[in-house]
Amino acid sequence: MTLRPYNFSAGPAVMPTEVLEQAQAELLDWRGTGMSVMEMSHRGKEFTQIAEEAESDLRELLNIPANYRVMFLQGGASSQFAMIPLNLLRGKTQADYCNTGIWSQKAIAEAQRYCSVNVVTDSTANKFTSIADPSTWQLNPNAAYVHYIANETINGLELHTPPQVGDVPLISDMSSTILSRPIDVNQFAAIYAGAQKNIGPAGLSVVIVREDLLGNPLSFTPTMFNYKVMADEKSMYNTPPTYTWYLAGLVFKWLKKQGGLTAIAETNQRKATALYKAIDDSDFYNNAIELRYRSWMNVPFTLADANLEKTFLAEAAQAGLLTLAGHRTVGGLRASIYNAMPESGVKALIDFMQAFAKRYG
Amino acid sequence: MTLRPYNFSAGPAVMPTEVLEQAQAELLDWRGTGMSVMEMSHRGKEFTQIAEEAESDLRELLNIPANYRVMFLQGGASSQFAMIPLNLLRGKTQADYCNTGIWSQKAIAEAQRYCSVNVVTDSTANKFTSIADPSTWQLNPNAAYVHYIANETINGLELHTPPQVGDVPLISDMSSTILSRPIDVNQFAAIYAGAQKNIGPAGLSVVIVREDLLGNPLSFTPTMFNYKVMADEKSMYNTPPTYTWYLAGLVFKWLKKQGGLTAIAETNQRKATALYKAIDDSDFYNNAIELRYRSWMNVPFTLADANLEKTFLAEAAQAGLLTLAGHRTVGGLRASIYNAMPESGVKALIDFMQAFAKRYG
Repeated sequence: MTLRPYNFSAGPAVMPTEVLEQAQAELLDWRGTGMSVMEMSHRGKEFTQIAEEAESDLRELLNIPANYRVMFLQGGASSQFAMIPLNLLRGKTQADYCNTGIWSQKAIAEAQRYCSVNVVTDSTANKFTSIADPSTWQLNPNAAYVHYIANETINGLELHTPPQVGDVPLISDMSSTILSRPIDVNQFAAIYAGAQKNIGPAGLSVVIVREDLLGNPLSFTPTMFNYKVMADEKSMYNTPPTYTWYLAGLVFKWLKKQGGLTAIAETNQRKATALYKAIDDSDFYNNAIELRYRSWMNVPFTLADANLEKTFLAEAAQAGLLTLAGHRTVGGLRASIYNAMPESGVKALIDFMQAFAKRYG
Repeated sequence: MTLRPYNFSAGPAVMPTEVLEQAQAELLDWRGTGMSVMEMSHRGKEFTQIAEEAESDLRELLNIPANYRVMFLQGGASSQFAMIPLNLLRGKTQADYCNTGIWSQKAIAEAQRYCSVNVVTDSTANKFTSIADPSTWQLNPNAAYVHYIANETINGLELHTPPQVGDVPLISDMSSTILSRPIDVNQFAAIYAGAQKNIGPAGLSVVIVREDLLGNPLSFTPTMFNYKVMADEKSMYNTPPTYTWYLAGLVFKWLKKQGGLTAIAETNQRKATALYKAIDDSDFYNNAIELRYRSWMNVPFTLADANLEKTFLAEAAQAGLLTLAGHRTVGGLRASIYNAMPESGVKALIDFMQAFAKRYG
């Protein structure tokens, strides 16, 4: 296997090296067809097989019940911020949203264009370092749904178990946490995720929706934003992003080879635990998130002396540890440690952090 | 260079072999960064360079004036069918549309959800084999714009020069003809194209809009469908389809190496002329499109004995000539001969057709 630097990008993020190697090997000729996957008609038998296998592997990994539709769409989670209210208000005019970070705020702003938003919990006061216990949330019984961002990629704040919201449909943006551990899909009305963290390259979103909720969109919904149309056409109402879909399929097969989500969850928990311990054991580094809401996937941290950030990033890059800057809106540092980041990468980062603290602390 | 079968798919379509080889060579490591392009942060300096070079090469190829914005978006032409009226009605309530084939009909159906559509010319009566001369079109002076599909991919009907429509903004879907020859962008208010024919893999659309038309969308336009937002954010309001954008950039560089659009147009015209001549010279094959509207890119044809189609497709595939079936909605046969189809491929197809006609005619 090729040795490469460790890339801690928050997304587009590192892909499993084995997946890239397979893609490389068959880039000009997929299984003797003489065609690259990106040159295939999306309705031909070759790509149909690729697409169906990807869906069936994803269904197996997440144990998705038969009454849920799975869609492979374009536009990222930002498109879903509109598609959720456009499709799932279902005649209602109110929806419940959680505000746990920057992505929550974007989801809320878009939803407010289509309905009355009730913010059921707001982490602004604690600067997005904690989330009020779901039992205290002010749920609206007339809400069409309750929406939350399972993992705030920028803030590093994660709700590790779905909140209990009674009979109101629960919807989650799982862009940066999907496939990091098993989930019980039955607890959700809809789950969506941009691909570019744990699924594959950017330009694809996975949307999982309980089928009885489909078919009642707002009248002005663009056809390409209509879940029912896309689900009924198996995500091929128009030409889908075929090559990205194929790469997602390779990632699903890689995940199965790793032992599925139970196995990857154990690895992810070990990786996160080790990195947070290194931060907590040092006065040089800090992570302010309340322990039970610390993200397994995105670990933001600051240096006691913020002036050292540039030096940290430059020396880390020289040591083969890439893309550790925090998001431009919050600054600081951040290590994203998605499924494809091996434990050796986290260990190398910890070793570097300890040595850096010794040099500059 | 790798020898591969000739793939006549209408899209996703054949890519230049040199482009695929370059993508393959740098798939795991783009220029010593240790990252695949698909693993790079879209806001990092490496991808910023890739994105900007792609835009500047496209501007050079099409000679796009400075007062036009270029966007690299998701969703394909089908999303543009909604985005055009959502963004470019600009307070008006009527728009002119041409009906020259199946894609026209889809564009019209979507536009009718947002405005009153006046069909200025309709090729239904001639079964989409011709287009009334633009001088006879019934233009509405109050229309927000005139929309036409420059090349009907399924029907093989192409309007080779833009219609003169006076002061009303002219908008064209050029999905299957863009970059096949030089165009005068100044004649258009907007041009859009799905990538999967002459630009790159599916999952990307190029949209070129005169900037004075931006900023007046319908109130309920999803933010991701708002041209002004996307243009102001340089197509990075959210994470764009980075890898597909990169591949499009490689195609643009390949086109420049071929001598640009004037050179590729000469080749394309030779390819199309040779193939139509082979069809016209034979009683065995037929193409019903009026000569001056015959597409350079998509050449549909029928056999005198339609029962031979399956045999034709099977024997062609054995001869290394792939994906020659007509679109499922119209049947028959179709050879798509985009920029990346070399003249040798068209020659091989003609040789095969002549030999097949001799065997079965």
